[in-house]
Amino acid sequence: MGKAHSRALSALASLDVPLRPSLVSISGRTAEPLERARSQWGWAEAVTDWRDQVADDRVRLFDNAGPNAVHSEPTIAAARNGKHVLCEKPLATTASEAHSMWSEAEQAGVVHMTGFNYRFVPAVRLAREVLESGDLGEVVHFRARYLQSWGWDADEALWRCAPAQAGTGVIGDLGAHIVDLARYLVGELAVVSASLRTIVPERRVEDHFVATVEFENGVLGTLEASRVARGRANQNTFEINGSEGSLSFDAERLNELQLSDTKHFRRVLTTEPEHPFMRFWWPPGHIVGWGDTFTNELAHLLEAVAGEHAVAPHGATFEDGYRCAEVCDAIVRSAADGTRKSIDYRQKPLG
Amino acid sequence: MGKAHSRALSALASLDVPLRPSLVSISGRTAEPLERARSQWGWAEAVTDWRDQVADDRVRLFDNAGPNAVHSEPTIAAARNGKHVLCEKPLATTASEAHSMWSEAEQAGVVHMTGFNYRFVPAVRLAREVLESGDLGEVVHFRARYLQSWGWDADEALWRCAPAQAGTGVIGDLGAHIVDLARYLVGELAVVSASLRTIVPERRVEDHFVATVEFENGVLGTLEASRVARGRANQNTFEINGSEGSLSFDAERLNELQLSDTKHFRRVLTTEPEHPFMRFWWPPGHIVGWGDTFTNELAHLLEAVAGEHAVAPHGATFEDGYRCAEVCDAIVRSAADGTRKSIDYRQKPLG
Amino acid sequence: MGKAHSRALSALASLDVPLRPSLVSISGRTAEPLERARSQWGWAEAVTDWRDQVADDRVRLFDNAGPNAVHSEPTIAAARNGKHVLCEKPLATTASEAHSMWSEAEQAGVVHMTGFNYRFVPAVRLAREVLESGDLGEVVHFRARYLQSWGWDADEALWRCAPAQAGTGVIGDLGAHIVDLARYLVGELAVVSASLRTIVPERRVEDHFVATVEFENGVLGTLEASRVARGRANQNTFEINGSEGSLSFDAERLNELQLSDTKHFRRVLTTEPEHPFMRFWWPPGHIVGWGDTFTNELAHLLEAVAGEHAVAPHGATFEDGYRCAEVCDAIVRSAADGTRKSIDYRQKPLG
Amino acid sequence: MGKAHSRALSALASLDVPLRPSLVSISGRTAEPLERARSQWGWAEAVTDWRDQVADDRVRLFDNAGPNAVHSEPTIAAARNGKHVLCEKPLATTASEAHSMWSEAEQAGVVHMTGFNYRFVPAVRLAREVLESGDLGEVVHFRARYLQSWGWDADEALWRCAPAQAGTGVIGDLGAHIVDLARYLVGELAVVSASLRTIVPERRVEDHFVATVEFENGVLGTLEASRVARGRANQNTFEINGSEGSLSFDAERLNELQLSDTKHFRRVLTTEPEHPFMRFWWPPGHIVGWGDTFTNELAHLLEAVAGEHAVAPHGATFEDGYRCAEVCDAIVRSAADGTRKSIDYRQKPLG
Repeated sequence: MGKAHSRALSALASLDVPLRPSLVSISGRTAEPLERARSQWGWAEAVTDWRDQVADDRVRLFDNAGPNAVHSEPTIAAARNGKHVLCEKPLATTASEAHSMWSEAEQAGVVHMTGFNYRFVPAVRLAREVLESGDLGEVVHFRARYLQSWGWDADEALWRCAPAQAGTGVIGDLGAHIVDLARYLVGELAVVSASLRTIVPERRVEDHFVATVEFENGVLGTLEASRVARGRANQNTFEINGSEGSLSFDAERLNELQLSDTKHFRRVLTTEPEHPFMRFWWPPGHIVGWGDTFTNELAHLLEAVAGEHAVAPHGATFEDGYRCAEVCDAIVRSAADGTRKSIDYRQKPLG
Repeated sequence: MGKAHSRALSALASLDVPLRPSLVSISGRTAEPLERARSQWGWAEAVTDWRDQVADDRVRLFDNAGPNAVHSEPTIAAARNGKHVLCEKPLATTASEAHSMWSEAEQAGVVHMTGFNYRFVPAVRLAREVLESGDLGEVVHFRARYLQSWGWDADEALWRCAPAQAGTGVIGDLGAHIVDLARYLVGELAVVSASLRTIVPERRVEDHFVATVEFENGVLGTLEASRVARGRANQNTFEINGSEGSLSFDAERLNELQLSDTKHFRRVLTTEPEHPFMRFWWPPGHIVGWGDTFTNELAHLLEAVAGEHAVAPHGATFEDGYRCAEVCDAIVRSAADGTRKSIDYRQKPLG
Repeated sequence: MGKAHSRALSALASLDVPLRPSLVSISGRTAEPLERARSQWGWAEAVTDWRDQVADDRVRLFDNAGPNAVHSEPTIAAARNGKHVLCEKPLATTASEAHSMWSEAEQAGVVHMTGFNYRFVPAVRLAREVLESGDLGEVVHFRARYLQSWGWDADEALWRCAPAQAGTGVIGDLGAHIVDLARYLVGELAVVSASLRTIVPERRVEDHFVATVEFENGVLGTLEASRVARGRANQNTFEINGSEGSLSFDAERLNELQLSDTKHFRRVLTTEPEHPFMRFWWPPGHIVGWGDTFTNELAHLLEAVAGEHAVAPHGATFEDGYRCAEVCDAIVRSAADGTRKSIDYRQKPLG
Repeated sequence: MGKAHSRALSALASLDVPLRPSLVSISGRTAEPLERARSQWGWAEAVTDWRDQVADDRVRLFDNAGPNAVHSEPTIAAARNGKHVLCEKPLATTASEAHSMWSEAEQAGVVHMTGFNYRFVPAVRLAREVLESGDLGEVVHFRARYLQSWGWDADEALWRCAPAQAGTGVIGDLGAHIVDLARYLVGELAVVSASLRTIVPERRVEDHFVATVEFENGVLGTLEASRVARGRANQNTFEINGSEGSLSFDAERLNELQLSDTKHFRRVLTTEPEHPFMRFWWPPGHIVGWGDTFTNELAHLLEAVAGEHAVAPHGATFEDGYRCAEVCDAIVRSAADGTRKSIDYRQKPLG
């Protein structure tokens, strides 16, 4: 994540955005790999205590790409010091922690964004625009799954497999992405019924879950995520069926949106000049990569900081990060006792 | 279904099977369309009362392709009269009715088969063989969905939308197929948690359901079926992930099985001479159609009647029809009260 | 081919066609396999001399599915005796022989058809209809290739590899199909420039050719066929680009036509009731097989015999068989001396 | 091209390469857009005469991304001044001009590279490695086409459509790419037979060509390129068939290589850590974009400048640029008189 964010920040230097980032300072716990990262990715200085950055007046944007367990404290501290904040997903290890982050950022009056980068895939943004246009009619079904396979061979020491650092396993890691896409594309989630498994016991965290969901608008859907699905390297895929047409997406073919009328799907290669974000990129048919979605995301954030638009609705705010966390918590609770759980967003909106 | 079965029976005449069918008699309620069907599909005679067929000594195989509500009575009567019986799916409108059919057929000592024709798709049979070979390791995930879209425009008078004739809607129609495939490929189902919708109210029966399932062997899975998924004409699709590889299938590309090692999927075009059932068909690359799966199914049944092998495990018996019905009933019950349901197969195996 | 034609003739018995075929007599050279074929495929009698059939008053349609070298003599004899004639492709081993067949059939006043079954694939007929509609604008490019791979492992004794029986190798076998499709879809061919290879020397006939072509309407195209393309079982594929849109087809996915507007391709699953030939077949999404294209072809022929329409333009007449043979001859001549060859159709139309 | 090169140079700053580029100076003809480019893409200064750069001692690498007609003079001048040179493809507007560039660069002893960036697509490099491994056996067929569709709507003033600036149209633009891939993957080309068209007359240069080719090793192939193929945004695709297997690639799915054994193709998603160039990029399944291929290309060039390896065989030298130009010239000559042309590489290798 450090690499992806750092490169995207560098790439912004040659994009038409209202603010140009300057890479002031990078932090990390261990001096030696930190210095390597600093030098490699072009940061001016490196510090081993994030408090130095929070106290640093030159820092205007605090970008937290660390493990989940160190999301809330530094991010809240930075917001309190008036810095705009970007935090990787999942926003926190629990909904209540995420709620605090949202609450603090709002009170501080800073711009806040949760790093759901898939919202910045041109095909995903196009999906949202198509849904808003009404061309697909009324949405009736949603299904999403996010399958990877590295879990079979993962290093046990990886922080993503450590409950203390990651909170949950696949739920917060991959599940959070598809929960956010569900909310972004179809609407707020109301009810969830889930089961989970830890298939590779050494992993210590769940590596598979399945769920059925109901949206507040009545739509039924399914969610599934796995780290142990052989043959699937990064299949973040969803399909939405409406009364007049459907759409589907697969991150392994990131530049394509499948879009149907009542009968037939067409493959929209989202590389035309008029497609979302493509003003930053290449001629028709020349695809963007996964790393470029971070550039799109950061461009959106800089525009928000410059006052050109709000982070929402196309970027995920800390409120979105919190709401996603409520759904993830409900998945865990439902799996524990086998009953449907309403998601009540107990901590009500602030405003 | 009458057309598909009739043509398959005719096609059998030129296949290398141990028994050659003779099309003795077709029955139906209304004389005029019945006579047209008789003449068109090559049946020797037509009768408006199935009891005439049940009493007809020339009839050795009773093939019930009528609406769900008229599955049990004629089929049981035929079995009692010593006729081998083939009945379309779902076997009955309730599990208890299906259990009676199984019980009666067993007591009569006749060969019995439920018309789950997808077991006779070469790619599906190959999937089973691959799973049995152990090449995919231990199964960890299963997901299936069966999506059609005709429900938006269906004639309200259609028997498939009438509770009295169909029992359930999409559950017994499309859901039964994927429940049977789940059982055929992965094993017995133990627990289900489901929700359903009637999206087009005029339909009177549910046209969409989603479910999570647990198999007796611990595998988690998802099931979904819809008649109102725009852009999907007949997407009967499943994917199975194992510890060493995965496979997936889509009936819209009936002659293909996607088969992965730990990393990459390859498209197996199941038209090589060594592929299941292809001894009946064409040179490599020359595909079979949906209708041909009924020919494969009936060939399997005739071989069973001739004593060459049992209907099980590759054909679905009435026991399979009954067990599928228990799962369908559990889907309905779970959707009604929102709790997980164990499937207890209360009516125990007969023998 | 005997199997495919026999089964299609049987299948016609249950289709809505104006004439019902009766399988009078099958001929072959060797008594024992002939009798097996007769019994298996449901022919009333078998004869070892085709002259018996030509003299048989009961025979109204003479269907020649034998090796290329025995196409012309029996077919001409049958036509002279007033029988309607269907002959497999390539119509003959040379253009001049094909011209004689056309000429004789015309003089006899019988219905004549060359067995280019790909014209009876729903997606191919739809391609023609789309082109005629003008939706794609003016055609500018055509490319087709027909790749198989059995040539690596073929039995050397196979007639398809024997110059005496087959004439050419891959040119007459697979090349003829794509030449016919080129003519059916884009128009008459004017110029060809080709090269060929015999990659497996034991084959004795060429097993690969490539060609560039010009149509009379000025369109440029490419043709290629091979029997030794590993991984390609039956890839008969073409693409046509017009000024307003494009289409493409691949026989390995026989039920799909890819159809574009100026930007994006959509996958048309040609299984809707309104699609060509689907009145004979199944509900939406339930695909037809390769064998079913022969049923479509024979239905078309029977309708022509019954006077409902002419064989042309949707079926290939003997004129089409002849014109295709001229192109195949030109491919051979061009490959021999390395120059472009005009195709002059020296033998002018008869009428 | 300026944008793609500039961004790739910036991206190199955070890659593990032996030399870090510093963006000294950008040149262009018109001051105002030049200054915008300079500022946007992060160049230290801008000059309106390339001679200033050629004379600038700080410049060690001269990267020519201008129109074809201004490739040779500045590049030769830079090489003579001891600068390493990278020049976009096609290397020059004629083979003889390209030969001079190669000859001068060799005499100057500088590192020289032609910008065939598709060699730096991970899937293309993997294709080369698979071919070298012998897994596909002996190559028997090659086919490539490069289809775009912008030609229908192009601004007539575009330099790519002006003979004086571009030399040829689609031949040097898209054709050069597939000629280079043919040479990189299969071997030297010996004979070509081609036809061309100017379909949109306002374009003034040819916008479509087709060709058959023979390689020195005897393999036959086809080449085609078009700027007016509706529905194809950037379909740079090739397929190679060998005696033991095949491979195919399509730039619209840049991160995939289709790889077959004797029967079935598997989709290799070239995003595993061990895949070519992926040490620079992301986790499995997280794709790279078209722009990233320039980063790979420039990394390769910097490694060559640092003495880690030669540009060849994986990068294209000016010799490769020259040889490609000979093939392009032969395509033009063959199309002009309709005969096969041998490509004699009259200007022999220098060393």
